[in-house]
Amino acid sequence: MNVGRLLIGKPLETKDLPHQAISRPVGLAVFASDALSSTAYATEEILIILSLAGAGAALFGISIPIAIAIAILLTIVTISYRQTIYAYPNGGGAYIVARDNLGEVPAQVAGAALLTDYILTVAVSISSGVAQLVSFPALRDLQPYRVEIAVGVIIIMTIINLRGVKESGRIFAIPTYFFLVMMFLTLLAGAFQHFLGGGLGVVSGVEPIHHEHVELLGVFLILRAFSSGCTALTGIEAISNGITAFKKPRSHNAAITLVWMSSILITLFLGITLVAHQIEAVPSHSETIISQLARTIHGDSSIFYALTLLGTALILLMAANTSYADFPRLAALSAADGFLPRQLTFRGGRLVFSWGIVLLAFFAALLVILFNASTTNLIPLYAIGVFLSFTLSQTGMVVRARKIGKLKPGEVVKGLETDLEYDPHWQKHMAVSAVGAACTFVVMIVFAVTKFATGAWFILVLIPALVWLFFRIHQHYKGVASSLSWESAPPETQARPVQTIILVDDVHAETVRLVNFAKSLGHPWRAVHVGVSPEKAIVVEQKWQKRIGEGEMVILESPFRLLAEPIQDYIAQLQEETPGCFVHIIMGHLAMDTFWEQALHQNSAFIFNLALSRMDHVVVTTVPYQIHRPGEEETVKPSTVPA
Amino acid sequence: MNVGRLLIGKPLETKDLPHQAISRPVGLAVFASDALSSTAYATEEILIILSLAGAGAALFGISIPIAIAIAILLTIVTISYRQTIYAYPNGGGAYIVARDNLGEVPAQVAGAALLTDYILTVAVSISSGVAQLVSFPALRDLQPYRVEIAVGVIIIMTIINLRGVKESGRIFAIPTYFFLVMMFLTLLAGAFQHFLGGGLGVVSGVEPIHHEHVELLGVFLILRAFSSGCTALTGIEAISNGITAFKKPRSHNAAITLVWMSSILITLFLGITLVAHQIEAVPSHSETIISQLARTIHGDSSIFYALTLLGTALILLMAANTSYADFPRLAALSAADGFLPRQLTFRGGRLVFSWGIVLLAFFAALLVILFNASTTNLIPLYAIGVFLSFTLSQTGMVVRARKIGKLKPGEVVKGLETDLEYDPHWQKHMAVSAVGAACTFVVMIVFAVTKFATGAWFILVLIPALVWLFFRIHQHYKGVASSLSWESAPPETQARPVQTIILVDDVHAETVRLVNFAKSLGHPWRAVHVGVSPEKAIVVEQKWQKRIGEGEMVILESPFRLLAEPIQDYIAQLQEETPGCFVHIIMGHLAMDTFWEQALHQNSAFIFNLALSRMDHVVVTTVPYQIHRPGEEETVKPSTVPA
Repeated sequence: MNVGRLLIGKPLETKDLPHQAISRPVGLAVFASDALSSTAYATEEILIILSLAGAGAALFGISIPIAIAIAILLTIVTISYRQTIYAYPNGGGAYIVARDNLGEVPAQVAGAALLTDYILTVAVSISSGVAQLVSFPALRDLQPYRVEIAVGVIIIMTIINLRGVKESGRIFAIPTYFFLVMMFLTLLAGAFQHFLGGGLGVVSGVEPIHHEHVELLGVFLILRAFSSGCTALTGIEAISNGITAFKKPRSHNAAITLVWMSSILITLFLGITLVAHQIEAVPSHSETIISQLARTIHGDSSIFYALTLLGTALILLMAANTSYADFPRLAALSAADGFLPRQLTFRGGRLVFSWGIVLLAFFAALLVILFNASTTNLIPLYAIGVFLSFTLSQTGMVVRARKIGKLKPGEVVKGLETDLEYDPHWQKHMAVSAVGAACTFVVMIVFAVTKFATGAWFILVLIPALVWLFFRIHQHYKGVASSLSWESAPPETQARPVQTIILVDDVHAETVRLVNFAKSLGHPWRAVHVGVSPEKAIVVEQKWQKRIGEGEMVILESPFRLLAEPIQDYIAQLQEETPGCFVHIIMGHLAMDTFWEQALHQNSAFIFNLALSRMDHVVVTTVPYQIHRPGEEETVKPSTVPA
Repeated sequence: MNVGRLLIGKPLETKDLPHQAISRPVGLAVFASDALSSTAYATEEILIILSLAGAGAALFGISIPIAIAIAILLTIVTISYRQTIYAYPNGGGAYIVARDNLGEVPAQVAGAALLTDYILTVAVSISSGVAQLVSFPALRDLQPYRVEIAVGVIIIMTIINLRGVKESGRIFAIPTYFFLVMMFLTLLAGAFQHFLGGGLGVVSGVEPIHHEHVELLGVFLILRAFSSGCTALTGIEAISNGITAFKKPRSHNAAITLVWMSSILITLFLGITLVAHQIEAVPSHSETIISQLARTIHGDSSIFYALTLLGTALILLMAANTSYADFPRLAALSAADGFLPRQLTFRGGRLVFSWGIVLLAFFAALLVILFNASTTNLIPLYAIGVFLSFTLSQTGMVVRARKIGKLKPGEVVKGLETDLEYDPHWQKHMAVSAVGAACTFVVMIVFAVTKFATGAWFILVLIPALVWLFFRIHQHYKGVASSLSWESAPPETQARPVQTIILVDDVHAETVRLVNFAKSLGHPWRAVHVGVSPEKAIVVEQKWQKRIGEGEMVILESPFRLLAEPIQDYIAQLQEETPGCFVHIIMGHLAMDTFWEQALHQNSAFIFNLALSRMDHVVVTTVPYQIHRPGEEETVKPSTVPA
C-alpha cells in the first residue's frame, strides 16, 4: 500500500482533470513520435527481407523503388486523413468513424485491430529502442540482456504512466526535436560527404544475418519487403485521434500538423533508405541500420554517432509512450459502450485509466519475452491492425460522403458524432477516401498473404476472436441491464418474515458478538453447526449449552466434509416451512491486519458468501471480529484526505 | 468443477478412512522403495565427483573404500533406528522424537529439514528415473525433453495422489520386488561372467562428462564424493514413520523389516559400486551408470537390459510417491501443532491432505525446472536435511535414555508420546544412540562444508528461515486463540440499538430487494450513495425520489473517487450519535453464474466487506440478486449426495 503510494503518487481530485490546448510545434512533437520513430526500423526491415534472397548488399538497390512506393502510399493516406480531421473536429479515430458510419461490427473490428496494434507498438518500439542502444560499441556487452532491459523499460514506463503525466506536452517535444535534429544532421553530413567531400564511406565490421536457406527474389519477396516497410505508416493516425488537444481552430491546426508530419516522415524515410544503400549497409543481429549509418558518416568515436543513437532510442520510447495514452483511452471508450469490462472506464487515484495501462504493459511485456525483444520477429504481427483500421476509417468516410451527397444545398442533418452538412465537393471527398480505402485494403491483403506464415496468421485469428469476445461481453451487460431494469422490478413493498440463523464453528469470544447481534435484530433465531467432524460437533454443542445457554442449536451432519451444501439444504427446508421469508444467515469473520495473516485462516465467510449468493431471498451477514497483533491495538482512522 | 471431479474422483465419506495392517514383505516393498532406489544414483554421484580430478576410469578405484565407509555408516544408523522403532511403537519420525525429548525448536528444525528433503526426494527421484529411461538407446531422442517429461510425471503423480490410493500396500510391492529381482539378476550375471564365464566386459561408447577445470584429488574431493554417496542413506527413516501400518507385534515386525532393508541396501550399493568399477563405467550426461552396467552385462539388445532400466525407473517413481504420503502427513502434524497454516490439516474430498500434496508438487516441479531435471545438480541440496533429522532424532533418543536411567527399577512414567519404562540396558541404548548421533552429525558437517559452494548454502539458509516462519505462524495462532478465549469474552447479552444503512449505487430492480429487507428487519434505516461522480449523484437522488419515494437518501461526496473511506467517516459519525449501536450496512451483490461474468462487474460488495470489517460493531449484509444468462433460469438444487 505504502510502496504503491510512493511509486504512483498521492491521489488527485476529479476536478483536476487537465484541460489544455497545445500549439502546432508541440502537437507535432506529441503526436508525431509514433509515426517518425518507425523510420528507425522500416528501412532495416525491408533490407532483412531482401537479404533472404542472399545476393548481398548489391541487391539492396531494390529497396529504393520499394521505399518510393511506400512514400506514395503515405501521401495518399495523408490526403485522406486530412479530410477526416475536418469532418470530425472532436476526434476522428478509426473506432469513432467506423461506429458513426458503418455500425457496431466494423467499429468493434477497428477497436480490436487498434488495441492489438497499440500493444505491438509498445513491444516493437521498445525492442527497437533497446536494439539501437546496444548497437553502440560501448554497450554491446548488454546484447544478451535485451529482453531484461526491454521489460525493465516497460515497467518503468508503466509506473510513470500510472502516476499520470502532468506536463503532457512540452517535455515530449524535446526528444522528438532532438531526434529530428540529429537525424537530419546525419543525413545532411552524408549528402555533403557524397557530393562535396571525399565521398561517402562504406560500412565495415558488420556481421550480416546468416540465413539457412536462400529464397528466390520474386514478386512474393518484393511484396513481403514492401509490407515490412509499410510499418513506416504506423502512427500516422495519431493526430486524428487527438484533434481536441490542439489550439483553435483545431481542425485547421491539426491538418497542418498532419501535413508537416507526413512530409518529414517521407523525407526521413527516403533519406535513410538512400544513404543506407549508398553506404552498403547490411542487416545484422548485432547492429541496427541507423547505427551503421551514423557510424559510417560520423565515425566510430564521434559524439554525433552516440547522440544520433540516443535520439533514435528516445523517440522510440516516446512512440511506445503514446500507446500508453491511446490504448487506455480507446479501451475506456469501448468499455463505456459495453464491449469491454466496465472497470476499464474507472479512473484510478491519479486520474488515469489504471486498468488499461496495466493491461497494455502486461501484454506488451509478454510479447517482448515471447519474441525475444526482436523487432524482426515482431514485425510480421505488426501493422495489419493499423491497415485494417485505416481501411475501415476511410470506408466510413466514403459512406459519410454519400450521405452528404443526398442532402439538399444548405441542409444540415444531426449526426451521432458530428452534424452532416451539405457540401458541393462531396464527390471529390468521396473519391479521395475511396482511393485511400482501396490502397490500404490492398496493402492489408498483401500483408496478410506475404507474412501469413511468419506470424500474421496469429493476428488474423486474434482479431475475429477479440470481436467475438467483445460482443459476448456486450450481450452480458445488455442482459444484466434488462434484468435490472425498473420495468422488470417486482413491486416488493410489503415486509416479509425474517428467519435468522447463526452459523457457529466453535463457541468462543466471537460467538457472543454474533448472538448479541441476532438478539438486537429481534427476529426468531437459532444456531447451526455443520458437523464436519462428529467428535467436534458434540463438544461444540456442550460448549453452547454451558457458555451461551439460550436459543436452539442445530447440528447438521456432513459426512463428505462439505460446508455449504448442508446449509443449503437446511435453508431450503426453512423456506418451505415459512413461505416467502427472508433467511438471514449471520456468521463471524476473523478480520486480520494483513493479507498473510488472513490467509492463515479458513475464511469460510467468503466460501459461504459465494455458495449462498445463488439462493433467492437468502441474505448473508458477516460480523467481523477484529484480531490485532499484540501491541497493535489500532482502530481504523477514517479520513478522506490522503496523507 | 466437472473436470476436477473427473480427474480426482467423487468425494469419500470420513468414515471410509482406511485402517489396514500389512505384512513384513509388503512393508518392505512399501517403505523400502525410497531407500533402495537411492542405489540408482549414489554410485554415480560418487564417480561424478571423482571425475572432477580428471584421471579417468583408472582412478575410480577410490570409490570402493568410500562405498565401504558409507556401508558402515548405514549399519550404525540402522542399529540406532532399531531402538527408536521399539521406543516409539506409534510412529517415531524425527519430528515426533525431537518434539518429545528435545523441545519445540529442535522439533521444528527437524520438521523443516524433513519437509525440505521430501520435496528434494521427489525432484531427485523423478529426475533420476527419467534419466534412467532416456539412457535406453531407443529412447535417447527424448533426452532434450527430460524437464518436460519429469514435470509431466509430477503432474500425473499429483493427480493420482489427490485421488487417494486405496490399495496402498500390495500394488506397491510389485515395482520394488521387480527392481530387486532385476538388479540382483544383473549383479549375479556379472559375478558369473567375472568368475566363471569369459570375463566381464568393459563399457564402451560412453561420452564422459567434460570438466573445464581439473581439481586436485585431495581429502576435500574424497570427502565430497563420500557426501554425494551418502544419499544412499536417504529413506532409511521411512519405516520408523510407518510402524503403525505393520501387523502386530508392530515394533517387532518393523524392526525386522528395517534390518532386511538395510542388508539389501548395503548389498546392492556395494555390488553396484564394485561392478561399476570392474566394467570401468564412466559418469556421463547421456547414460546412467545403471544403464552402462546392465548394458555391459546383458548386451545392448537384451530384454534384460531394458527390464533392468524399467525396474530402476519404476522404483524411483515409487520413492517419489512415498514423499506424497510423508510430506502431507508431516505437514498436517506440524499444522495441527500450529506451526503451519491450518488448511494443511483439512482432508479433501478424497480424504487426502490435498493442500500438502499440491504444495509438494509445486515445489518439486519448481526444483526440477530450475535444476534442469539433473540429479547431479540437485544432489548438493539433498540429504543435508536427512542427516540433520537423523542427528536430532538420535540425540532425542540419548536424552530419552538418560531420563530412563533416572527411573527406579519397575517404575513407569507417563510421557507425551510413549511411557518411560525402567530398562536396565539404558546405558547400552544411550551409547548406541550417541554413536549414531555423533556419526550422522559429523557427516552432516562434512556435507555442509564440501558441498557449500555448489548448493548446500541454500539449504543452510532455508532451514533457519523456515523455522523462523514456523514460529511466526505459531505466534499468530496463539495470539488469535487468546483473543478468542472464553475468558477474554466481554459479557454482551444486552440487545443494542441497530442503525441500518442501505448502500445504493443506482436505483434499479435490485434496490427494491434491499429496501424490502431493511423494512422487514424493522430498524431505523436510510439510503446512502457515495458520490464518486457528482453528475451521477444527482440522477440517483432523483430516481430514488421517483421510484422508491420513502426513506431518507444521503449523498456522501468523494472527490478522490474513493468508495470505502466516505462510508467509514459516515459510520464513525453515526456511532458517535448513537453510542454503542450496531451499524448495519446492507448492500446488493449481483450474483453471476460464472467467474468470468462476475469479473465483468465491480463487485464492490467485496471491497466494502474488506474495508468495513476493520471497524468495530459494524456489520455488513450482502443481499444477492441472481442474474442468469437468458434461458438459464436455474436455481440451486441443494444436495449433499455427490453425483
